[in-house]
Amino acid sequence: MSPELIKATYIATRPDRDPEMLAENIAREQSLELTRSLIPEPIADRLLGHILSVREVDTQHWQLEIGYPAELASDQVGQLLHLVYGNVSFYPRIRLVGMILPHSLHSALPGPMAGIPGIRAWTDVEGRALLMTVLKPRGSDPADLAQLAERFARAGGDIVKDDQNLVENDLDDFRNRINLCAQAIDNASQVTGRQCLYLPHVAGSGSHLQHQLDHVARLGLGGVVMCPWVIGLETAATAAREHGLMWLAHPAVAGVFTEGSTRGIATPVLLGTLVRLAGADISIFPGSGGRITSQHVDDEGATCAALTETLGTLRPSLPCTGGGKTLELAPETARRHGPNCAVLIGGDLIGRGEALETAVQKTVAGLASAGRPVSPD
Amino acid sequence: MSPELIKATYIATRPDRDPEMLAENIAREQSLELTRSLIPEPIADRLLGHILSVREVDTQHWQLEIGYPAELASDQVGQLLHLVYGNVSFYPRIRLVGMILPHSLHSALPGPMAGIPGIRAWTDVEGRALLMTVLKPRGSDPADLAQLAERFARAGGDIVKDDQNLVENDLDDFRNRINLCAQAIDNASQVTGRQCLYLPHVAGSGSHLQHQLDHVARLGLGGVVMCPWVIGLETAATAAREHGLMWLAHPAVAGVFTEGSTRGIATPVLLGTLVRLAGADISIFPGSGGRITSQHVDDEGATCAALTETLGTLRPSLPCTGGGKTLELAPETARRHGPNCAVLIGGDLIGRGEALETAVQKTVAGLASAGRPVSPD
Repeated sequence: MSPELIKATYIATRPDRDPEMLAENIAREQSLELTRSLIPEPIADRLLGHILSVREVDTQHWQLEIGYPAELASDQVGQLLHLVYGNVSFYPRIRLVGMILPHSLHSALPGPMAGIPGIRAWTDVEGRALLMTVLKPRGSDPADLAQLAERFARAGGDIVKDDQNLVENDLDDFRNRINLCAQAIDNASQVTGRQCLYLPHVAGSGSHLQHQLDHVARLGLGGVVMCPWVIGLETAATAAREHGLMWLAHPAVAGVFTEGSTRGIATPVLLGTLVRLAGADISIFPGSGGRITSQHVDDEGATCAALTETLGTLRPSLPCTGGGKTLELAPETARRHGPNCAVLIGGDLIGRGEALETAVQKTVAGLASAGRPVSPD
Repeated sequence: MSPELIKATYIATRPDRDPEMLAENIAREQSLELTRSLIPEPIADRLLGHILSVREVDTQHWQLEIGYPAELASDQVGQLLHLVYGNVSFYPRIRLVGMILPHSLHSALPGPMAGIPGIRAWTDVEGRALLMTVLKPRGSDPADLAQLAERFARAGGDIVKDDQNLVENDLDDFRNRINLCAQAIDNASQVTGRQCLYLPHVAGSGSHLQHQLDHVARLGLGGVVMCPWVIGLETAATAAREHGLMWLAHPAVAGVFTEGSTRGIATPVLLGTLVRLAGADISIFPGSGGRITSQHVDDEGATCAALTETLGTLRPSLPCTGGGKTLELAPETARRHGPNCAVLIGGDLIGRGEALETAVQKTVAGLASAGRPVSPD
């Protein structure tokens, strides 16, 4: 019986050798990393990657489709990333643009603990896109950050995340800040009758990371922000799950994969499929029109789809476009992606000063009336 | 008093805006990520990144030197990576090529637990480069891998690492394989009277990763292999340190940073300085002349220097060139980099069959006679 396959699609730009040979080299490099003649036949039959197709796209580009035995992923998201893009990251001009897993692997990998249904249940928001803001800047008095959180939540905002620059090396400082913000969110709930989802940023490693997660879980908060491309994708996912917390994957550093055009991993695969397989409940990626706009803006819809479309029995992750968006853009984003997304507005909301509450109310109303002309799947 | 600064040097290729403005944007994006007018002055004074210099290199390239207050790194290697390359990874054509830390941060970051002195003490090798091999391919009977380890060690090889594809999701399978290889290395020690350093590969996350490290530490082995660009750089470093183990940083996936020319992070910074600050005792990077050759081969010497030159009170990490090198190249590498390096030979050694022992002896002799015409620092 043939082994179940992970199908990986690469684009080779100006291949440095015969494209068939390049595809064979990648298949071997990424699976068993050994000269073909030194691989015993029974091992090759079971574990060697092989070419599924090689196709000229145009004079500059070739599409290489490789099949890897699913066993090589070891039911670990980290090993899956390693398998499809480990050593080949050093090859000239190879970009991973597609990845299809067998259903057995969908079942074996965690996926989101809560995902969109869990976030909707927490925030009590149905049928519209969600509005998220961010607490910043670092260096602020924690009471000021808490006040910002409370004003946003009282005005009807849905999700508050910490800026990923908010990092304390002292646990007492961390606990003090989180306590104040959690209390502020709770104060707002007493008024609004619904829960805003507050996601503190946790960072670092080892016992320091564990202590932060312990504290967040003990406060009864719903989840955290982590930077998986700093602390490790599977590391982040497991840390959240071990504490029963949802988590938002912030894309810091991920641009090194997604941007550029001749190497790396396309956004729908990296910040869509891989982040969802790992179990992020929310995935932020740069959308169009803000301070940070991906050079691959056309990938925005495909990334939303990768996060929300049917994928084995995995729950959908909430796509969130960020990168310096303005309030005015929020309804248009919801029109484009449908209700199953969140829009992150940071600086533009903070800049409203006294008019913050009005701006939140107006934007939430705009999201509600944006309807759903385009379904994300 | 001005805050202590982390100095980061970027190359902007065909800047998409006025270079001075671009530099100011990066300084703000990476430090406080907020519109300038919304940052209160006391916070800006303490924490805002700022331009140190902007210089035209040629018609295509500008060098931007930014100073970030050292406090922003929070004494964490992960946060340091985030600070110098988090959101800017999404900017068009920005490459980090240099990073200088204040001495206070050198003292606060861990650095290698053992480094070159510890590896030399373990293996009892002085005054010459070390020879390393790799156990592969995945799918082999563990007894065959153990036999390969024993033959290499008996012949006088210095370091045996697991292939980074060797991953078990079942702990019993992991323990069984490691036990056999550790016993094989021990058998060889009885004959040679010296210790070969055996580094099992550990992977995954959470308690699964911890159990693997526990087992390796309990066996009294000296260290492990980890893939920091899969499991997280600081995550890997802390996991090893918490178990009192040395570790080798395998560069899988890191090519997405180092290769290409207009974005990412240059090899000497990524696989040199950052990996050393995090505390890797050995850092593998692709050298010239093998199956995998970096497009920036000129960085090889600078990477060795970043790993070994004086850096606060941090111990030096052992540079190791890999990527499909042949035995014949080993002495030449040692001549180029001096004795403070290791040379990794995998397939070419396995391919020698019955002549493996002779090849190891001859290569070790070659390394010994390579002398040290070029000092790595």
